[in-house]
Amino acid sequence: MTMISLIEYGEASAEVRAVYDDIMRTRGADWINNFWKALANDPPTLRRTWESIRQVMAPGALDPLTKELLYLAVSASNGCAYCTASQAAAAKKQGMSAQMFAELLAVVGMANETNALANGYRVPVDERFENLF
Amino acid sequence: MTMISLIEYGEASAEVRAVYDDIMRTRGADWINNFWKALANDPPTLRRTWESIRQVMAPGALDPLTKELLYLAVSASNGCAYCTASQAAAAKKQGMSAQMFAELLAVVGMANETNALANGYRVPVDERFENLF
Amino acid sequence: MTMISLIEYGEASAEVRAVYDDIMRTRGADWINNFWKALANDPPTLRRTWESIRQVMAPGALDPLTKELLYLAVSASNGCAYCTASQAAAAKKQGMSAQMFAELLAVVGMANETNALANGYRVPVDERFENLF
Amino acid sequence: MTMISLIEYGEASAEVRAVYDDIMRTRGADWINNFWKALANDPPTLRRTWESIRQVMAPGALDPLTKELLYLAVSASNGCAYCTASQAAAAKKQGMSAQMFAELLAVVGMANETNALANGYRVPVDERFENLF
Amino acid sequence: MTMISLIEYGEASAEVRAVYDDIMRTRGADWINNFWKALANDPPTLRRTWESIRQVMAPGALDPLTKELLYLAVSASNGCAYCTASQAAAAKKQGMSAQMFAELLAVVGMANETNALANGYRVPVDERFENLF
Amino acid sequence: MTMISLIEYGEASAEVRAVYDDIMRTRGADWINNFWKALANDPPTLRRTWESIRQVMAPGALDPLTKELLYLAVSASNGCAYCTASQAAAAKKQGMSAQMFAELLAVVGMANETNALANGYRVPVDERFENLF
Repeated sequence: MTMISLIEYGEASAEVRAVYDDIMRTRGADWINNFWKALANDPPTLRRTWESIRQVMAPGALDPLTKELLYLAVSASNGCAYCTASQAAAAKKQGMSAQMFAELLAVVGMANETNALANGYRVPVDERFENLF
Repeated sequence: MTMISLIEYGEASAEVRAVYDDIMRTRGADWINNFWKALANDPPTLRRTWESIRQVMAPGALDPLTKELLYLAVSASNGCAYCTASQAAAAKKQGMSAQMFAELLAVVGMANETNALANGYRVPVDERFENLF
Repeated sequence: MTMISLIEYGEASAEVRAVYDDIMRTRGADWINNFWKALANDPPTLRRTWESIRQVMAPGALDPLTKELLYLAVSASNGCAYCTASQAAAAKKQGMSAQMFAELLAVVGMANETNALANGYRVPVDERFENLF
Repeated sequence: MTMISLIEYGEASAEVRAVYDDIMRTRGADWINNFWKALANDPPTLRRTWESIRQVMAPGALDPLTKELLYLAVSASNGCAYCTASQAAAAKKQGMSAQMFAELLAVVGMANETNALANGYRVPVDERFENLF
Repeated sequence: MTMISLIEYGEASAEVRAVYDDIMRTRGADWINNFWKALANDPPTLRRTWESIRQVMAPGALDPLTKELLYLAVSASNGCAYCTASQAAAAKKQGMSAQMFAELLAVVGMANETNALANGYRVPVDERFENLF
Repeated sequence: MTMISLIEYGEASAEVRAVYDDIMRTRGADWINNFWKALANDPPTLRRTWESIRQVMAPGALDPLTKELLYLAVSASNGCAYCTASQAAAAKKQGMSAQMFAELLAVVGMANETNALANGYRVPVDERFENLF
């Protein structure tokens, strides 16, 4: 049910293992999920993607849980089954409860509904919404 | 630049005005944005959509700002210009700073990138991610 | 606000004019809309696209108005502003009223909402829905 | 293959059962499909979604079969497997034949093709398509 | 795991067999993949789709491998699992290596990320990018 | 027509100017397009995005023109007007002719059509397409 080999730790190159080690250390986990085992077929993409995620998801003006919820919301909205499953697990680890998950999906559903309505009516952007920042 | 008339307060039916009044009261605003003026062409959709949004966006396990951010993230991800503009304004009113907006978009961008990678490699869902709740 | 020249009838090649003439004859119209003027930059795509649309939109088990409504619903759902505008005009010519348009968009919005919910919960397909035909 | 428990009738709260009963009564069915069993994890979303669908799909300027076809077309276009399967079953119950389904998908495919062409060429909306209603 | 019967060669009508034969001859293959067996439920769509693909994918200003790569990139970006799998096989047959596939997906991922950023910031199109051809 | 200030070179911080300088040097250009001026509101995202693009678009198993075409195809398919315009300009600089652009869009359109058909029929992936690499 996939297109490429999933590279296990035991068969990985030193370059790939270094990224796997950093992922496990950063996450306090003792295993690697399939997404990274797939990317490991292309080490530069593995490294770049992991470093980008680590930077983007680090605490900033938004806290880590909020960032995980946003990531999950986009993945669910896009209908990416893998990403929805893996991001929901990541968000749960950061504190997302079942009730928070349900409310998140309700917002995602509502946004998709009103996006379709706004596009369908071709609603012009209100002058007051321009140049927000 | 639109397909239907935008119904102004002065020309609206009593049924539509009642919804407009509730929107302005709930939001502490003295004007109505174009999305509602477009929906007012179909009063049952206007009423149902407004009541659904009021219910979905009310404080719950997630606070109102987080809900606005999730709504905005989905709208930006979907490329709905109107919704992105109006939701960003709503989120700013709830406390979203320019820095929070920038970090939100960075997460949305990253999610779209990894969604495409997971779909492209057809990565199988890890057993451990099933039956989360 | 575009990327290529729009080919007007007066400057079109004989090959392009033949398609333009067939479009106007089939539609009982005396003008060509911008979509075709853009495709005319690549005559084989112009011809193939027009012939495909003529075949797909012809009366069959579904009547022409229903087909126009389906086309419009997908275009609005996809957020294609040009297609939404042009298809709404085509559907109106086939009999779509303002009220029908409003109900169509309400269905499109609802479908997008429940699609997001079904994807977000990763709802498994019911056994009874398999092998429908 | 899912993320949450599917709530069966026998284990449902009185609030959830009331919605399940209404769904079965309205549809003349003696079972509940998985979509509602998933939403039942969040009773307010279950109730709101069902009541919205009942209102949106009721006969109006568009007949119930046309509404089911539009819903199915959007679901297929969005690539939501669950929604495509469940909506096709709903549409078949309202009278959709295998031939109608095939023609519907042909229209959905064509709309997606021309949407991509119109977006790719950035075709400007014709003046005559503005302010349709 | 599907909604319609897949029409095998042995049970196909003469009209369908003629298309199947042309597909196998053109591709130098001795079997038909499921996509065509599904479309065979609607022979006019089967014929039109095959003839369109044959025309679109023929060598032109772009060579056949480049066309297969573009097709695959769009399918992966859209998250269509069937199309991603079948197009990757087609591209491999035309010469796509595992490394090319990995680089293709890296580009697809990056495009989806920057598309989301450009939409989220609602970046205005630079004057210099207008009227390219 | 945007939501944030576009940061011009003259008003940019040293950190932002360093990225602008690298963009212009790498591209052999003497100006910065709006996408980067928008990202400059968040310097870490500006730097990370530019460095990722530079890595992803560098020559590898795929040549630079092919990578630009893939990027453009995804952007057009997603309906991102800004990205379509800017990527088409980038691809033209790498050698894309008007005819290549037309053929690219024909492939993008066809992919979107068949993606919708495969999803609508829920076509099961052929055994032979599994484990490609």
